[in-house]
Amino acid sequence: MRIDRKRLEASMEALGRVGATPKGGLNRVALTDDDRRGRDLLVTWMREAGLAVSVDQMGNIFGIRAGADGLPPVLMGSHADSVPTGGRYDGQLGVLCALETIRTLNDGKVATRHPVGMVVFTNEEGARFQPAMIGSGVMAGKIPLEDAYNARDRDGLRLGDELERIGYLGPEPCVPRPLRAYLELHIEQGPILEEESIPVGVVEGIVAIAWSRLTLTGVQDHAGPTPMRIRHDALVAAAEVIRGVREIPRKIGGDLVSTVGRLDVMPNIPNAIPGRVSLSIDLRAPDEHHVTRALGLVDRVVKDAARAEGVSYELDHYWRVPRTRFDLEVVDTIEDAARSLRCGHRRILSGAGHDAQYMAAICPTGMVFVPSRGGRSHCEEEFTGMDDIEHGANTLLLAAAALAGQG
Amino acid sequence: MRIDRKRLEASMEALGRVGATPKGGLNRVALTDDDRRGRDLLVTWMREAGLAVSVDQMGNIFGIRAGADGLPPVLMGSHADSVPTGGRYDGQLGVLCALETIRTLNDGKVATRHPVGMVVFTNEEGARFQPAMIGSGVMAGKIPLEDAYNARDRDGLRLGDELERIGYLGPEPCVPRPLRAYLELHIEQGPILEEESIPVGVVEGIVAIAWSRLTLTGVQDHAGPTPMRIRHDALVAAAEVIRGVREIPRKIGGDLVSTVGRLDVMPNIPNAIPGRVSLSIDLRAPDEHHVTRALGLVDRVVKDAARAEGVSYELDHYWRVPRTRFDLEVVDTIEDAARSLRCGHRRILSGAGHDAQYMAAICPTGMVFVPSRGGRSHCEEEFTGMDDIEHGANTLLLAAAALAGQG
Repeated sequence: MRIDRKRLEASMEALGRVGATPKGGLNRVALTDDDRRGRDLLVTWMREAGLAVSVDQMGNIFGIRAGADGLPPVLMGSHADSVPTGGRYDGQLGVLCALETIRTLNDGKVATRHPVGMVVFTNEEGARFQPAMIGSGVMAGKIPLEDAYNARDRDGLRLGDELERIGYLGPEPCVPRPLRAYLELHIEQGPILEEESIPVGVVEGIVAIAWSRLTLTGVQDHAGPTPMRIRHDALVAAAEVIRGVREIPRKIGGDLVSTVGRLDVMPNIPNAIPGRVSLSIDLRAPDEHHVTRALGLVDRVVKDAARAEGVSYELDHYWRVPRTRFDLEVVDTIEDAARSLRCGHRRILSGAGHDAQYMAAICPTGMVFVPSRGGRSHCEEEFTGMDDIEHGANTLLLAAAALAGQG
Repeated sequence: MRIDRKRLEASMEALGRVGATPKGGLNRVALTDDDRRGRDLLVTWMREAGLAVSVDQMGNIFGIRAGADGLPPVLMGSHADSVPTGGRYDGQLGVLCALETIRTLNDGKVATRHPVGMVVFTNEEGARFQPAMIGSGVMAGKIPLEDAYNARDRDGLRLGDELERIGYLGPEPCVPRPLRAYLELHIEQGPILEEESIPVGVVEGIVAIAWSRLTLTGVQDHAGPTPMRIRHDALVAAAEVIRGVREIPRKIGGDLVSTVGRLDVMPNIPNAIPGRVSLSIDLRAPDEHHVTRALGLVDRVVKDAARAEGVSYELDHYWRVPRTRFDLEVVDTIEDAARSLRCGHRRILSGAGHDAQYMAAICPTGMVFVPSRGGRSHCEEEFTGMDDIEHGANTLLLAAAALAGQG
């Protein structure tokens, strides 16, 4: 039993046209009109594949293929939203490989004991609404539904309102449901598989992640007649924070990474001393304790930078996900599937957060990685070759079938 | 002959309500609907004062009170646009003191040999369209009209189109015209007059100004799985530039000031390594040579920061205004006017650019400063007391009358 590579490729191309950028990337940010169009196309395909489709209160879309009896389903999935100038593989590929797995089971009229289903999670990227992975986070009971609804984008629009606006505020409760397993195929987004020429990564877990936000408040004033001696420039303090955050991995080691990815200046004009700057800090490490130590260093970096420039600040460590260890049986099943394909595989740790991270809290979970060219993602140059994708999708297919059992 | 303080105060309050912010500041950015409403109100008042009103191709509004014969007019003025969260004194006060001067001449039925007029210049702040002082710059022949029309705001809207949209794309040629003198009253925007408790500054000139823009291009990638060793983070390079630019005044001395006021990050989300950052650099100094040396240091700072992070860059020193020295006769006339009021005055240099800077290239020019509380401006806290304003407005009145001559 093998997936249909041409059919999968055609689906990738069709969905990739929804929100396509001129440079071959994807701009399909969560709960925009393009996200709605992408969802509509997926729902059409899911219905065509004979799935019973439902939408929950967070806009997560489920499609279930019946099993031989009433056992909990094997669920596969990922997300369909992208970052603003993202690529055509992150998220979309996992959803389409799940669909392709179901289509392949249909082709072979394969009956399974456990139902096999797929899910499309809402706002995984966190580009528009924070935190990221909010759809799976609510489902796993880690984020209160009301908090998720009240998340606001830069224009002040509420997530709950935008869900309703695009027609994906569903009736199903967004709560943990009995599941045999959750499987997610995703691009690696790092350089390891490509550097080692291995098409399939058997993911053992996900690094610990912490997100913080910082607002620095100085004194907004005219850039001309204000002598240097009386300035309290929020952007100068922010620059010290960026430098300090960049230095943290060198001090801690152990594959910790740190990023200031977002920064907004007020009033952001050439001839005013910035009065306020807000910025994000992203910390990740395989070792939970390294993240804890890094957060302590962030506290010190911010305090020192603010004091040096005479500005005040608010620092909020608002989101933390511990190191995730995937289920041993599921990881072994994925590894067996990859091994049987003789395509080459290795165990690997994910540096990025995924919906699988939250799903691991409520059911046995595992992931399949495929290589990212140049290790790049969250950019229009994101790319994975079809040979690698085929190996990954077949691994997903065989693992799902094994976990679902013969009907 | 003295101005009517209550009438001036009432006009300040009425115009200050157009685009008022909840915190008592002003958000009346150039060529917005609020700018149009402010202009409409001024035009109404100018017509009520019996002025012949005309609008030129840059939207600069002129109102002329006839003189005894056909001599070139004494023009007073400033601008009516503000920065996004600016104050109610920067620009608006100069326009209203010019109007109050004309109203006072009308009250006394004072005939002058030279006509006395006022002007409201377009987009002085440069907050929305760069460069700043674009209306007077075109009038002085320093900026080509087509370049001004093609300036675009952040949303890609053209200045020329926005002028037309708000109904202020006038028919008069925007070219130098014969003028007896140009006088501008403005808030100091610095701490000197307040520190010395002096209500009137007789401005001798304006510091040299240089504006540059920098774009740093790194490699946009995922903040999680991308090891620190392979990163090329445009924001980390930008932070080094901000630090370096901040250090330049210490190296050069001589009251040079440097500011990074605007900074935009792409894609500006928490979990992507910034692929591109653009920022502004503002340099000013009383001594022209200090600005030249500072620009050389900027070149080095940017080159070093880009090399250290492995990012590419484009640096454009796109706007430079030399040190302005105001006309000796006009400065003396202003000083005589202030002296006759016995209110206290001193000579002073402007650290901010003003429309007077360009006007000085085409006619004898001078400025009157009034104090800024705490030296602050370009912020909602901007404030000047009515006693100081009254002294400044009377200085403007007496100087304008003296330059216009008895009819």
